[in-house]
Order: sequence, then structure tokens, then C-alpha cells
Amino acid sequence: MAEAFLDRSINVTMIDMTPQLMATLDKDMADIILEFMTKQQVKVCLNEKLIEFEKNDDGSVKSLITDKQTIPADIVILGIGVKPNSELAARAGIKLGAKEAIQVNNRLETSVPNIWAAADCAESFHLITKKQVHNALGTVANKHGLVAGINISGGMAEFTGVLGTVITKFRELEISRTGLSEKEAKELGFDYEAQTIISASQAGYYPGSEKISVKLVVNKQSQQILGGQIIGFNGSAKRIDIIVTAVTAGLTVQQLIDLDLAYAPPFSTTWDPVQIAARQFV
Amino acid sequence: MAEAFLDRSINVTMIDMTPQLMATLDKDMADIILEFMTKQQVKVCLNEKLIEFEKNDDGSVKSLITDKQTIPADIVILGIGVKPNSELAARAGIKLGAKEAIQVNNRLETSVPNIWAAADCAESFHLITKKQVHNALGTVANKHGLVAGINISGGMAEFTGVLGTVITKFRELEISRTGLSEKEAKELGFDYEAQTIISASQAGYYPGSEKISVKLVVNKQSQQILGGQIIGFNGSAKRIDIIVTAVTAGLTVQQLIDLDLAYAPPFSTTWDPVQIAARQFV
Repeated sequence: MAEAFLDRSINVTMIDMTPQLMATLDKDMADIILEFMTKQQVKVCLNEKLIEFEKNDDGSVKSLITDKQTIPADIVILGIGVKPNSELAARAGIKLGAKEAIQVNNRLETSVPNIWAAADCAESFHLITKKQVHNALGTVANKHGLVAGINISGGMAEFTGVLGTVITKFRELEISRTGLSEKEAKELGFDYEAQTIISASQAGYYPGSEKISVKLVVNKQSQQILGGQIIGFNGSAKRIDIIVTAVTAGLTVQQLIDLDLAYAPPFSTTWDPVQIAARQFV
Repeated sequence: MAEAFLDRSINVTMIDMTPQLMATLDKDMADIILEFMTKQQVKVCLNEKLIEFEKNDDGSVKSLITDKQTIPADIVILGIGVKPNSELAARAGIKLGAKEAIQVNNRLETSVPNIWAAADCAESFHLITKKQVHNALGTVANKHGLVAGINISGGMAEFTGVLGTVITKFRELEISRTGLSEKEAKELGFDYEAQTIISASQAGYYPGSEKISVKLVVNKQSQQILGGQIIGFNGSAKRIDIIVTAVTAGLTVQQLIDLDLAYAPPFSTTWDPVQIAARQFV
């Protein structure tokens, strides 16, 4: 929305009560987005809480009042999160699980035999934490639908799990993440190591080569990759799929370094930035 | 070179004695490039062999004579392949291996103790065929250098192997491949299955969404992925890295389908085209 408003020359102020943008990223990575949005003339107010709206006489919004200031506004957009719509299931006696999403097994059957749940109302197994989570995303919903559909019609399919993969962009800045962030690894008590590198999305001399930052979180004992975060320009973010595949397959940093990834100057540096990040651990 | 010449409004004729462009691809995929190059006004002559050049009085080229025609020309560029520079090693009594490249073990030591070979002059182990090959590419050379350097200086490093990953482009058309092509799988006697899909590089409604073709070659018994080829526009080709990682980790098509790959409309279809290809096998 901020991007769309800027394109229409509308001044944008973003207010977030947390200390960073995009809670699924580590703060050091999120700060790259903060810097870019600020440069693009979005006024970002962190650690700031919305208290109430002031209205004009006709009922339209006049300004919003935070715990720090009053901001005049013509349009207000609220991004207040996602919640599973599981009330009907609960009233029918079906058990709820993670974040009040409908509890399901790996075939997406609920606690009541022959009742199945799929997509944004249902929970998912997390491949690294081994816990059920609520992961309301289009990819997960689509896979859920396929698995539940096969099972409902008498087949045998399994939903193996999620890594919490996310990709998005603000103007030219591409952002992606998968698996555990450093923050999550710490909270969950993993013995981890984290490294961040800054490299180039293409060969440095190639027109359009831009900055890319890659952060990897690795299991200190097994050296297996637990997660990654990528922020950059010009083809940076979809590289997260290398990390998704490596994490799912249980690859170590050395195995990631050894991968015969694709290189030509218009597409990458000789060592892909993801491998440059992996090389920080050995 | 064809691209650079077109950009300078120079007419380009390409002559190849083989029946297709880019021998490392299967013909059905290479034909996509042929169609695109032809549309871009490159005259491509396949199954045609260069016999000799006609010269002007000043010694400059006047035309080239093939087994089918005479083509007037101002500039001729020859692409005649790559050959390892291994003569010095051979004369010193060091054994040669694949395609006359210097024979090395997985630590890149030659047949003579304490003599090491790395990069375009040395052979590499192929992860799928389990044979030594000559793979003269920048990524391989760079990894070779790291491994040989560590070993020469008393360390212990191993070059695990290659998949013959290649990425390139002609104007906006991006091309990549890894592992076994269908042609190679057949020649090597693999019990394989191959499927090709056409999908979109981004969500269909998103500006800049373009055509992408993905071909997968799969081991019929184990359902493990043996190789892949991608041709398309706008971020298509670097997706080959998903296949590189999956092939190296020994993933099956079902495991590829289950991957929590990144999706948002500016980056992909809900199921990544690589997964749409994998779904053809189940």
C-alpha cells in the first residue's frame, strides 16, 4: 500500500508498535528495509502505538493519535494481522491447535474422523521446530487443498510441513526469508551460529548489478542450515529457494558451498551470494 | 556475439553443423531458442557445415562457403569449443583423463604425488554419471582453486563434483540446465521419465509475467530427479538452482513438490513452475 500511495504522490507515514519492520525478519535485516523506505520518503515510526482516530464532522478521518504524536491523515490503512476462522469448527466440537487454528494431523484430518481442514483455518507442521504453527499463506493453502482433496476422495497424501517461507518487495527492494531467524533460534534454545554477508546480485561489472544481503542461521553442532534471510535488488529474493531446498534436505554449510549452482555474469557472482554466506562458517 | 551485433544493426547468420542449438540441451528445448532467435532476425542455419572462406584482395573475408550455400560476410566469429591445455602435464609424465584433461582425484592431486591440477585443464567428477568429465566453467574453476589451494597448503579439502550446470541468455530469453538431459539419460542407459511444462514466470495477472518452459528428467524407479532444463523470461533461468540443490540432495519428485518455495505474485506462480513440472510425474 505504501508503494501504491507513493506512486500516486501521496505522503505516507507508517506506524508500528514493534521496534522493527517485518517481525519475521531479524532486526539487522529489517533495518535494511527501514533505511530504504526512509530514503524513498516513507516516514516510518517504530515503537509507536496507535491510540485513537480523530474524525471530521462528516465522519471521515481527520488525524490519528499515537502515544507520541498527532498525525493528520486523509486515508488510513490498518494491517492488523491474520486470524484463523475456526469458530464454526470449535462449536462443532473439533479441537483447535496452534493460534486457534483447527488441529490437524499430517493428512489434514481434524480431531473428528472424516472431518478435514485445509488452508488458512488449519495449522501446519513446522519442519525445523517440529511444532504445529499457523502459517496462513497462499502456497500452504494450495498444498493443503491438494492433500486434503486426495485424502477426502480416498487417496493417501501427506502434508510434510512448512518452513515459514515468505517473499515480498517494496519498490525495487526484494525481501525473503525461510526457516528459523536468529531471534527464533535463540528463543527456541537452538545452539546456533549466524552470519551475514553483503555481495552483488550479478557480476560486479555487469550493468544492473546491485547490492544483496544474505543472512544464514546454522546449527552449531551439525552445521546444518536452519534458515536464511535475503534482502536486495534485481533477482535477489528468489534465491531463498536454494536455502529452502537445502534446509529441507538437511544440507550442511559445506554441502551448500559444494553445490554446482548456476553462474553467468548477468545472473550471479561466480560464487552465488548464498554460497558466499555459507563460506563464512567454515 | 549475435546479440551484440543485432544491437549494432548488423545482420547475423549463425551456422551450426549439428541439428540443434546448444548441444547441452534436449532438442525440444533448444528449438525454443531457435524460434526466439529467428523472430529476432538471426538467420540460423542448422545441419550445415562450414567448408572454407573466400577472401578479398586485401586479405579480409569476403564470404564463407558451406556445404549448402555461399554467404557474403564482413565479420566472421568462430565458436569452436574448449580444449584443456594439458600438454605440459602430459610431457611431464602426468596422466590425462576425460577429454585429455589432467587426471585428478577428489582432492585434485594428479597421478604424480605433490602435483596438483585445478580449473579448465583438469577433469571433474560428475555427481550423477559417477564418471570423470571435462567441465571448463568459471564456477568449477573457482571451486577447484579453493580445494587445490587448501590441499597444497597442508589442509584437507575435497571437490565433491559437478552437475554440468549452465546458465546463459540471448537478449531477454534466459536459458539454464543441470544434471542429465533426456538425451544423456538415454545414452547412459538410465531408466528415466521426462516431462516438460509451460507456465508463467510470475502470477499471470502481474505486469511482466512471461512464458517459462521447464523440463525435468527423473529416475523411473527411485523417482529421484536426474536433471532439468529451463527456458523463459524475467527471472526464469536462476530457478535451475532449485533443481541443482534437489538433484545433489537426491530428492524425489514428491519431495520437490513438498518444498515450501517462495511465492508472491511479483516472483512466481503459487506453485513454482519447477514444482508444476514435478507434479507431472505423480
